[in-house]
Amino acid sequence: MPWTRKDLITLEELSLDEINQIHATAAAFKKILGRSVKKVPALRGKTIVNLFLEPSTRTRISFDIAAKRLSADVISFDASASSTTKGESLRDTAENIRALGADMIVLRHAASGSPLYLSKLLDIPVINAGDGAHAHPTQGLLDTFTMREHLGSLKGRKIVILGDILFSRVARSNIHALKKFGADVTLCGPSTLVPRHLTALGVTVSHDLRGALAGADVVMLLRIQHERQSANHFPSLGEYTSMFGLNKTRASWLNPKALIMHPGPINRGVEIDNDLADGPNSVILEQVTNGIAVRMAVLYLCSGGQPENVIAAD
Amino acid sequence: MPWTRKDLITLEELSLDEINQIHATAAAFKKILGRSVKKVPALRGKTIVNLFLEPSTRTRISFDIAAKRLSADVISFDASASSTTKGESLRDTAENIRALGADMIVLRHAASGSPLYLSKLLDIPVINAGDGAHAHPTQGLLDTFTMREHLGSLKGRKIVILGDILFSRVARSNIHALKKFGADVTLCGPSTLVPRHLTALGVTVSHDLRGALAGADVVMLLRIQHERQSANHFPSLGEYTSMFGLNKTRASWLNPKALIMHPGPINRGVEIDNDLADGPNSVILEQVTNGIAVRMAVLYLCSGGQPENVIAAD
Amino acid sequence: MPWTRKDLITLEELSLDEINQIHATAAAFKKILGRSVKKVPALRGKTIVNLFLEPSTRTRISFDIAAKRLSADVISFDASASSTTKGESLRDTAENIRALGADMIVLRHAASGSPLYLSKLLDIPVINAGDGAHAHPTQGLLDTFTMREHLGSLKGRKIVILGDILFSRVARSNIHALKKFGADVTLCGPSTLVPRHLTALGVTVSHDLRGALAGADVVMLLRIQHERQSANHFPSLGEYTSMFGLNKTRASWLNPKALIMHPGPINRGVEIDNDLADGPNSVILEQVTNGIAVRMAVLYLCSGGQPENVIAAD
Repeated sequence: MPWTRKDLITLEELSLDEINQIHATAAAFKKILGRSVKKVPALRGKTIVNLFLEPSTRTRISFDIAAKRLSADVISFDASASSTTKGESLRDTAENIRALGADMIVLRHAASGSPLYLSKLLDIPVINAGDGAHAHPTQGLLDTFTMREHLGSLKGRKIVILGDILFSRVARSNIHALKKFGADVTLCGPSTLVPRHLTALGVTVSHDLRGALAGADVVMLLRIQHERQSANHFPSLGEYTSMFGLNKTRASWLNPKALIMHPGPINRGVEIDNDLADGPNSVILEQVTNGIAVRMAVLYLCSGGQPENVIAAD
Repeated sequence: MPWTRKDLITLEELSLDEINQIHATAAAFKKILGRSVKKVPALRGKTIVNLFLEPSTRTRISFDIAAKRLSADVISFDASASSTTKGESLRDTAENIRALGADMIVLRHAASGSPLYLSKLLDIPVINAGDGAHAHPTQGLLDTFTMREHLGSLKGRKIVILGDILFSRVARSNIHALKKFGADVTLCGPSTLVPRHLTALGVTVSHDLRGALAGADVVMLLRIQHERQSANHFPSLGEYTSMFGLNKTRASWLNPKALIMHPGPINRGVEIDNDLADGPNSVILEQVTNGIAVRMAVLYLCSGGQPENVIAAD
Repeated sequence: MPWTRKDLITLEELSLDEINQIHATAAAFKKILGRSVKKVPALRGKTIVNLFLEPSTRTRISFDIAAKRLSADVISFDASASSTTKGESLRDTAENIRALGADMIVLRHAASGSPLYLSKLLDIPVINAGDGAHAHPTQGLLDTFTMREHLGSLKGRKIVILGDILFSRVARSNIHALKKFGADVTLCGPSTLVPRHLTALGVTVSHDLRGALAGADVVMLLRIQHERQSANHFPSLGEYTSMFGLNKTRASWLNPKALIMHPGPINRGVEIDNDLADGPNSVILEQVTNGIAVRMAVLYLCSGGQPENVIAAD
């Protein structure tokens, strides 16, 4: 099947075949870039606008590098610049960017649904780089890409997502992808952060860390927000660490070859001990590296490229 | 006549022939870019510095894209960066930029006259991207370019500029260009924003909206500053809208084919109703698109390019 | 001897031969760029990250232009972006940048020793763009490059560094280079800014301006921090100027052909009078221009380039 989507809004709507196409394209880009080729001319002359109306250095730079490796020109609007568009609607901002000749918009926005809205309004591709608590599809794609590199098929694999899940778009996008791959997903953490009703996502919810980690093939840690510390939230950072922080003892409950993942930035000593973050099971930096290849694949395909052209070149 | 100017400071000093040369060059660039050519090599290897000491995302990005379409490298200093040049004079900042090897400076500054000052000091081109209440020549060029695309000759055409005109550099630059084209310019708005003494610019001043709009070929709306809302200004935003906001009834007084223009960002529901902003007479987004081609023409010509070379390539 | 260093951390550790290699490479780049060649393809496809965790528009833009003249892609993290990496260690930030595929990191950091720390941690080159009060090696290289262009050999030349020296990394890097060249270095200023114990650096310390300037071949002025003005520091800006500001009378004590230098931004009327800053002995803007060629040389050599390849091309 050829790739036909103009936009990437959520992994929920993608077919398994489409996710496989993105992963295959990303794998081909990764191989090409690994051979000391630093750039491919695929998007030469195209202008990609990073419209990051919620701050995010890390994801913006990953998209920026991915675009440059494809030889595109990149223009970034960041959160501070957004003050100059005050009083202007998202629609007007986006239509202006389109009128300036942009060929694609990568949108990060605090409001769930804003990338979908823009994708219907504009005739150019819109890539969701994170919208509210809704979705962060390129993160879900790079995480599952990294799992597959190590584990091969994810069918029946036990994947534990651990931490502050209630409003996590990272968790949501991973869940959608993992279920399509047939994985067995468990969400774990304190009940305030991982309420029972999340079972509606078609996953297991557990508040028993030992049971959740037992025999898991992957544990994906999510960042605990520092902001909790000052408020009267339960648990505090200290309480969280004592109850759910990943340490050597708890890691011993995992499958010995289990992958330890984290979307970053990590709070060392909070979600995870130093030794584990830097240990042999950690693939945290591989996730970062794979983010470039996966985002190149998304930018390339949504611009009208086809997987086989990259795969043939690889 | 060959193009000989190093700088673009104001439209007042340009001859009609020079404006025509810029427009003809812009039209050629627009045609070239419309043929899926995304970049021309005209300024390859040149470094253009956007020195925006007054914030402006919109104009800065338009110049940024124009420079990249000409294959130039672009370095931006924006208003926040200017804090690091605190205590340093504009002259020293500019001479440092020159010493860093910049080939051209695009200057936005709150002080009227600062681009002229720099243009005399430096041997590289200086392009005025808006100086105080003085001039915004590329805006005037793109606005008249857009009018000519739709109306052909502007001779004898009735052009109404409506809104907050007293300190508007956009209005001033348009007036200078429109008069050279032989247009009949009317300024309209409340007397606090459009005082009688503006007739000294060689235009009609009217406080009667109906009379001003009657039979007009173009109405150019200027942005009302939100800041007025909180002070004891007259009129407030609400008062302005009720008296001078463009709505369907008032638009019916125009020539039926009249163009509705706005330099953006628009305040929907203040200067203009939604239906009109998005209606068939609105050319607001075309103005944005034409800004790229017009700024390419200005950057190209002031770098030593000649119109006929672009026109021949088109 | 071929160039073998991966990093540039401090001039203290460089041999005289290594400094000569950098200067020779910079001289060759300067000649090449002087022939209307604006870019060389040396670092095409490489990604250089400017990690400026302490604000610095001037040095960042100089590195940015140098990288672009070498055809590299440049990504900048600046001080404001660093707020988004809050809670993340410098090590994690750097390892993430490495994982994103960066080929080189240029680091500006408030903590002395941080570039050394990163250089040991990462397998990619780390260039120190200023660390605390420790070192600013590219500034020392460009300053001595500029002196040599005018004076030839620096052996036995009298070089006076004047001003706020106690915590100056610029002074420290210049001292290390100048001593290797055999120059005779005098530090001068009020005893609060130039304490006697600085003689431990192997230089003369003087609080007598006339004696220090007498017959000097170079006077390098350092910026007095405006912050002193508001505190109960001694001397205040006014006191400093009356005691140590360079004016016409005091400049007459210098060797008549002496160079007047300043790393910028200058406080006109504080460290130096207008007439001298813009006079025939001032090489302040030449320092800025030479900064590009010197930084190109550093980026090129630490990426694995060899001096003779540039010198042959020149």
